[in-house]
Amino acid sequence: MNIPLTPLRFLRYAEKQYPARTAVVCNDKRYNYAQFADRARRLAGGLLELGVKPGERVAFLSTNCHRLLEAYYGVLEAGAILLPLNIRLAAGELGYILNDSGATILFVEKQFLPLVEAFRKDLTSVKIFFLLEGAPEVSWLSSQDYEGLLAAATPHAADIASIDENAVAELFYTSGTSASPKGVMLTHRNIYLHAVHVCMAFQIPNGNVELHTIPLFHANGWGVAHFLTMLGGKHVMVQRFDPKEVFRLIEQEGARTCSLVPIMATALVNCPERKNYDLSSLTRIVIGGAASSPTLVREVEETFGCECFSGYGLTETCPVLSVSPMKTGLDWEGEQRYVRQAMTGFPVPGVEMRVVDANDQDVAPDGQFIGEIIVKGDGVMEGYWRQPEASAEALRGGWFHTGDMATLNNEGYFLIVDRKKDIIVSGGENISSLELEKALLAHPAVLEAGVIPVPDEKWGEVPKALVVLKANASTTESELIDFCRARLAHYKCPRSVEFVDNLPKTATGKVLKKDLRKKYWHGQDTLRPEAAVSKKGV
Amino acid sequence: MNIPLTPLRFLRYAEKQYPARTAVVCNDKRYNYAQFADRARRLAGGLLELGVKPGERVAFLSTNCHRLLEAYYGVLEAGAILLPLNIRLAAGELGYILNDSGATILFVEKQFLPLVEAFRKDLTSVKIFFLLEGAPEVSWLSSQDYEGLLAAATPHAADIASIDENAVAELFYTSGTSASPKGVMLTHRNIYLHAVHVCMAFQIPNGNVELHTIPLFHANGWGVAHFLTMLGGKHVMVQRFDPKEVFRLIEQEGARTCSLVPIMATALVNCPERKNYDLSSLTRIVIGGAASSPTLVREVEETFGCECFSGYGLTETCPVLSVSPMKTGLDWEGEQRYVRQAMTGFPVPGVEMRVVDANDQDVAPDGQFIGEIIVKGDGVMEGYWRQPEASAEALRGGWFHTGDMATLNNEGYFLIVDRKKDIIVSGGENISSLELEKALLAHPAVLEAGVIPVPDEKWGEVPKALVVLKANASTTESELIDFCRARLAHYKCPRSVEFVDNLPKTATGKVLKKDLRKKYWHGQDTLRPEAAVSKKGV
Repeated sequence: MNIPLTPLRFLRYAEKQYPARTAVVCNDKRYNYAQFADRARRLAGGLLELGVKPGERVAFLSTNCHRLLEAYYGVLEAGAILLPLNIRLAAGELGYILNDSGATILFVEKQFLPLVEAFRKDLTSVKIFFLLEGAPEVSWLSSQDYEGLLAAATPHAADIASIDENAVAELFYTSGTSASPKGVMLTHRNIYLHAVHVCMAFQIPNGNVELHTIPLFHANGWGVAHFLTMLGGKHVMVQRFDPKEVFRLIEQEGARTCSLVPIMATALVNCPERKNYDLSSLTRIVIGGAASSPTLVREVEETFGCECFSGYGLTETCPVLSVSPMKTGLDWEGEQRYVRQAMTGFPVPGVEMRVVDANDQDVAPDGQFIGEIIVKGDGVMEGYWRQPEASAEALRGGWFHTGDMATLNNEGYFLIVDRKKDIIVSGGENISSLELEKALLAHPAVLEAGVIPVPDEKWGEVPKALVVLKANASTTESELIDFCRARLAHYKCPRSVEFVDNLPKTATGKVLKKDLRKKYWHGQDTLRPEAAVSKKGV
Repeated sequence: MNIPLTPLRFLRYAEKQYPARTAVVCNDKRYNYAQFADRARRLAGGLLELGVKPGERVAFLSTNCHRLLEAYYGVLEAGAILLPLNIRLAAGELGYILNDSGATILFVEKQFLPLVEAFRKDLTSVKIFFLLEGAPEVSWLSSQDYEGLLAAATPHAADIASIDENAVAELFYTSGTSASPKGVMLTHRNIYLHAVHVCMAFQIPNGNVELHTIPLFHANGWGVAHFLTMLGGKHVMVQRFDPKEVFRLIEQEGARTCSLVPIMATALVNCPERKNYDLSSLTRIVIGGAASSPTLVREVEETFGCECFSGYGLTETCPVLSVSPMKTGLDWEGEQRYVRQAMTGFPVPGVEMRVVDANDQDVAPDGQFIGEIIVKGDGVMEGYWRQPEASAEALRGGWFHTGDMATLNNEGYFLIVDRKKDIIVSGGENISSLELEKALLAHPAVLEAGVIPVPDEKWGEVPKALVVLKANASTTESELIDFCRARLAHYKCPRSVEFVDNLPKTATGKVLKKDLRKKYWHGQDTLRPEAAVSKKGV
């Protein structure tokens, strides 16, 4: 018997097995699984009544909210493709994404109306705008809001047997630090298999309580949403990350697990009010989105008395690829354990992950050689939306090329050292810009640092540091270079340091190194030689 | 990215992530995952060198042993289909199965040579016989044994990308209480998805230690083998079920989980020597294969200090369909909990399960109405081997018809009350033969009881009990009927009782009710009206 793999089955299962269990908590609203499933079917019915056709793109511009979670299932029940938008993008980027995807309907949270107003006139495909909640006070909004649409709709459920499991179900756009955002096509099968594999890796108990601290417009809030639904878990929505609000929700809902980016984890650890809340329900915090640190892992474990490890993934991979808990049978102790749990980790079931040189050959698993991470997995995207060339390039040889440069150690743990495009290739050696930035940030006068390659006649390229100093702090170029040399091999250290007032960043806070590089490569950044693995590694 | 779902990926993953972890413990042999995987590849290489072609059937007649587990992967790496044989079958049945499947190679454990000798001359397709271990002392055995084959072979691994996930991977024959054994075709995809779903339902931790008390020739020893491999768990083999040996292995290997049929659980509970062993590693015992009882669940939990619940499944479904732990959010206490955990349970993720009447319409979920269990699930077989009509009948309407009659309660828990062909339809009421047998067995003089329908002019059919008395015990027909009437509704109770010396049974110990019925239906058992759901239920 061959039943199409689709995330729609997750909600159907939960509705059948746990109809009365609380499914979603969102501000003052609570829905059980029977209500959640009914609302998803009503959304599907409403979309069909609007004339939505199979494969049409339906966009949401929303913070974490029960309505966005309903769309995860309702849009798919209607046979359409869900397009969750990143609320932190600029108006121009959002307009580009809506046009590129050809989305026809946009649901928008009230607070983002001015943002939509800023790009609305440039849209080429969106025909209907719905307010997610509230009276539509501007003329270009549909007279019904989301709630009105649901109330008037006849519930609709797809015929599972007729679903093509390899059809696109969700479209997530990459943040695009190096090029225009690309639409990542995730199929029903991608999403289903990703969820069950990650569930096994995380060993999530039935009825788990998850605090959705990570935006659900990032690939499924890091992939948690779907398997939590299947397990009949409780989705607790966090609209805006505020430590006190997070603590309050943990205490109120008995949250057991959440995912955090490092800066969120640091904020929670350093918030003095945490002593006023009962946080004993917490069992695990996963740190991802950016490199964690052993110190942070230790602080989280000590502060909250729960397990803390790292996770790694990309939008293109649904997203989770690896996690860093201690494998059964290993015997890490003390600081060693924190160091390992801050690593990129080992692949979850269903994922094959390698570190390869420029010829796609495996590097030695010695924790030293640097190469690119390439992966196979059931969650790996079908390709980029309407970009067959970029898709073929990213998936060449049947492996997805992550663009992340890493080492692999003899316990099978990966450690990302840099993005491929940011690594510095100097005299045949790969130098991690991240490692250098970390060294510079350890200096008391340094607030921010960005390390980039600049051309060099002898070495091809050499590292240059761009540094923002803390207010009222001072240091010199030679002092910073010496500071690095005391900590790292000489060949890795910056040859020059330039002090700047600020560093250019994306809407999501990532340093735009391509912008930094332009000045030194005469705007010819694309002429830079592509990073290749060194024979010696770092 | 679409990677074929095949259980081969489980062992590949474990080998990559946990090469040095102990994979199999079998008598005095221990293999880690690197060795286990190497041996599987050597078996594949050896089979290919023998000329085995894709889809060819390779049979094993073996108790639980590392070699049978190696065959789970090695036979599939060679592109062939694994056919594990039930060692408890009679010579004629084994010969029938080997011929029906067209198996070409038979691997046999030394102790079963006389059994093979008894049907060898009737075989039509088997070309080569291999002894699993030891010097081949009879002329019809290959001069190499299994170990010799592996030692001489060049390891071979399949190209995963070229595997058809919908191709048959394993062939398991049903025990055939009602007809000739039928070959159940399980595909690579069936096995893969069954394993990941059951793993989620059981919430098995990484590196679990499982005692293989259930024969691996039953659908994967109840489906445990494959997900245990993926989790890098330790397979501890039990060749012959002996309580003291089971206790010794639990203590020695730190076994955490095992599956038992009720009679095994009873034997463990009642074995006085258990006090001599440290059994504190046990966390869970699953009872399946036959109906459990609240008393048994309680005794197991109290005796071993671990969780105990029931599981249900069929060879045709890979096998697990449902389990009976308490759903999060329910609040069973005391005896109520034991009653529920002895039930058939609720479906695992990926499985849809219904109780339907003769028109495939759902019955009321009131714990009273009796109907047939029908299921959909990713683990449901492709069909019966070379039996398109039986396959179409069993899978009619896209649902597998289990032939098990059950009720469904308002918490979503199923309870099997009888096999469809054994239920008695009297005046439009369904009467469970199992319920009657249970009532009769509660009488102190009764050793065994089989209840069957016999023709009746007024009621269509009425229940008749065939009873074996305990040695030196005595009772009368009317006393037994009164005994039942004191416990059950009158209409359900036997109209007649006949005392017999023994009851006919299958090789696996199931009472052959069709043989019992013959006498009363003039050998025309097939003329019996098919059981239909009553409007009133029991």
